[in-house]
Formats: sequence, C-alpha cells, structure tokens
Amino acid sequence: MSDAEHASPTTLPPADHTDAVELLGLVAYTELASFGRLAGDAAHAPTLRQRQALSRLAAAMLDRQERVLVRVEELGGDPADCMSPFDGLFDDFDARTKPSTWWEGILKGYVGQGVADDFCLLAAQGLDERSRDVVVEALTHDTPSQRYAPVIAEVAAEDPVLASRLALWGRRLVGEALGVVGDVLSRRPALARLVAAGAEPVAAGGGSGPAPATQSWVFARLTAEHSRRMDRLGLAA
Amino acid sequence: MSDAEHASPTTLPPADHTDAVELLGLVAYTELASFGRLAGDAAHAPTLRQRQALSRLAAAMLDRQERVLVRVEELGGDPADCMSPFDGLFDDFDARTKPSTWWEGILKGYVGQGVADDFCLLAAQGLDERSRDVVVEALTHDTPSQRYAPVIAEVAAEDPVLASRLALWGRRLVGEALGVVGDVLSRRPALARLVAAGAEPVAAGGGSGPAPATQSWVFARLTAEHSRRMDRLGLAA
Repeated sequence: MSDAEHASPTTLPPADHTDAVELLGLVAYTELASFGRLAGDAAHAPTLRQRQALSRLAAAMLDRQERVLVRVEELGGDPADCMSPFDGLFDDFDARTKPSTWWEGILKGYVGQGVADDFCLLAAQGLDERSRDVVVEALTHDTPSQRYAPVIAEVAAEDPVLASRLALWGRRLVGEALGVVGDVLSRRPALARLVAAGAEPVAAGGGSGPAPATQSWVFARLTAEHSRRMDRLGLAA
Repeated sequence: MSDAEHASPTTLPPADHTDAVELLGLVAYTELASFGRLAGDAAHAPTLRQRQALSRLAAAMLDRQERVLVRVEELGGDPADCMSPFDGLFDDFDARTKPSTWWEGILKGYVGQGVADDFCLLAAQGLDERSRDVVVEALTHDTPSQRYAPVIAEVAAEDPVLASRLALWGRRLVGEALGVVGDVLSRRPALARLVAAGAEPVAAGGGSGPAPATQSWVFARLTAEHSRRMDRLGLAA
C-alpha cells in the first residue's frame, strides 16, 4: 500500500469496507435478535418492576444497534441489507435451546449474547479504528449481561437446586453457541479474515496454545471468557 | 377554592395528585403493554426491514413511556407502583383476541391501542396542564398507529379478501376494547372523575347525544374516533 493510500481512510480498497460492513451487519443482527429475546423475557417477567427493567434494557440495546447501523451507512452500506446474510442465524440455536423456565431464558441471554458479543469483539480487532470503537461501545457499555449478572448470582446463591440446574443449562448453551460461531466462521470468509487480521498482534507476541485465528484458537478464547462470566454468577462453567 | 390555592399548583389538594398519578399509571402501563406487543409483532415480521422498523417503533414507545414515568415522580408517585393497579388489565382482552395472522396482529395494535389512547386522552382533559401535556405528547406524537395506517391501507387496497377479513376483525377488536374501557371506568373512580372533569367544558357547550362523562358518552366518542381510524385504512368500521 502506498503512502497516499495510508493517508486517508477514504482510499481504503473496497474489500476492507465490505468486510467491515459484514461484521457490523452481524453485530446489528445480533442486537436485533437480542432486542426481541429481551422484550419477550420482559413480557413474562415475574414482577412489573422486572418487566419494566428488562423492557428498558431491550430498548437501550436497539439504540446501540442504531449507532452500529449509522456506521454501516458511513461506510456506504445499507442498514437492512447488511443484516440479511445473517437472517435466521439463531433459528437452529433457538430450536435447540428452548428455556423451560424464566430463569433459563435469562441465562440463555446471558450466555448466548456473551458468546456472540465476544466473537464480534474478537473480529472487531481487525476493523478500522472508527468501526472498532463503534462495535466496542455497542457491545461493552452497560450491557444486559452486566446488569443481570448480580440478579442471577443472587437467586443462584439462594437456591442451590436452581443453581446446579442453571450450571448444567449453561454448559448446554455454550456448546450450542460455539456451534453457531463455528458455522459463521466457516461460511463467512470476511469474518474469518477479520479475526485473522485482529489476531496478528497476538501472534507476534508468541505464547502457547492453538495457532492464532484458527477455529480452535477462537473457541479457546470464547470458552475462557465464558468461564469468567459463569464465575461472576457463582456457577460452575 | 381560594385565590391562594389557585396561585400555585403545589397547593393542590393531594387527591388531585392521586387521580393524576393513576391516569399516568394507566398510560404508562398501556405503553409498556404496547411495547411488548410491538416487539412480538416485530419478531414475526415478514421481512427484516419490517422487523427493524417495528422494533424501532417499540423502543420509541418505551422512550415516551419513560417521560410519563418522570411526570409520575414529579407528582410524588412511584414509577412501578403507579402501574400495578393495571397489571394484567389486557389479559382477558388478549385471550379473546388472538390474531391468526401477522396482519391481524398489526390491526389489533392499531385498533386496541387507538381505543386505549383515545380513552386516556379523554381522561387527560381533567388533568393539570403539565400532566395533560405529557400525556398528549406521549400518545399523539409519531405513534405506531400513524406510521402503520398507510401500510395496512396499502395491503387492504391490494387484497379485497384480506380487507374484508380485517374489517370484520376490526369490529370484533373494538367491541372487546370498549369492554376493557367499561371495566376500567367502573372499577377506577379516579379515572371516571377525570373524564367528568374534562367533560365539563364540553357539557357547557350543550349539543345532543348522551350526557357528558357517562359510559355511553365515552363509548360514543371512542366509537366515532374508531370509525375515523378505520376510514384511514379504507376499511368499513
């Protein structure tokens, strides 16, 4: 790449924008799906206060999603088209992980969205700085997971039977969620490219474990994050 | 009431605040219920664009509801407690009006929310000016009904069979919705008082029809508004 091309982001080759729009599309679609799930959980919440709080979290999630779509437009993409490659992405996952209680539904959001967010954050390391900032802001600022961790931890601490059921349910969920990630990685080369690009600095640092940017490497990182998340609930991962 | 009491709204007797908080609670609860219904309709929308658009409308509705809850706090009420008298208000209505298609669900929102909003706007005429402004702003500014009327009108114009089914469905919906209004009016004296207070200027103007603020008077006004709304869709009321 020439110095002139380095000088301005508008001279980036089109392929870079395409990859970025694809990841932003995945982020936006994931947040749209989470909005629907949270709103559904809200409608069945045990108390009016929880119903209000979850509805508010859902609405806030859509506000963040809109900011991701604004970035898609800045890159010349279309806000609805960018999501369409992912339409139906969670259908199989949802069919395999139907919660049998309200708490299982809440944990499903915590685990499923946690894995999805972590994958998007890994791939975001390969984005231009502005797009990366948008994704990091959307996925790490005041998320439902951050809000709900203490609530789940509290009921789990009070009810050991529920806690052991939720721990089992969490293992099932993370397995299914990693299945979706594996699928996306193998079917969407753009996302695999972004993960690889983002992994370069890590690779330069050396270290043991699977080779960077391979599926095993991605799974190892997502699993480690998942364990930390379950620790925060006081549940065995 | 003495001149001193007229001078400042802070000297209003507590009963007025109680009635206002009750109506604001009904408005907030209605919007929370609409949020859940719209989010559910969004999840089953035929296209990703409609899914996004309906999700956005749902989130915007919750933003407006929050402004109503802010007014509740200004009046010394509690945002969650003010809704609790109405918890489950639409359960019977929902059980009796299960949509069998996506369009029936959309029309249910249009008709049901239309009647609920019109009732709240009638009662809001009996509120202090600030609270009335909050309710009017929440219920008349860029509502899902305003957005969805042209979409329903378009499919109805294209498909006469669907149009006649929706017209029939609309009549069923308005009957059930008026049943909920009748229930609320008879069980919540505060709301009946506000409707009566708001009807005074109308009564002074004379005219024919049922005596102001009676259930028949309320029903006549809601039915007239409903007919106008169905006209906008090109459907027989």
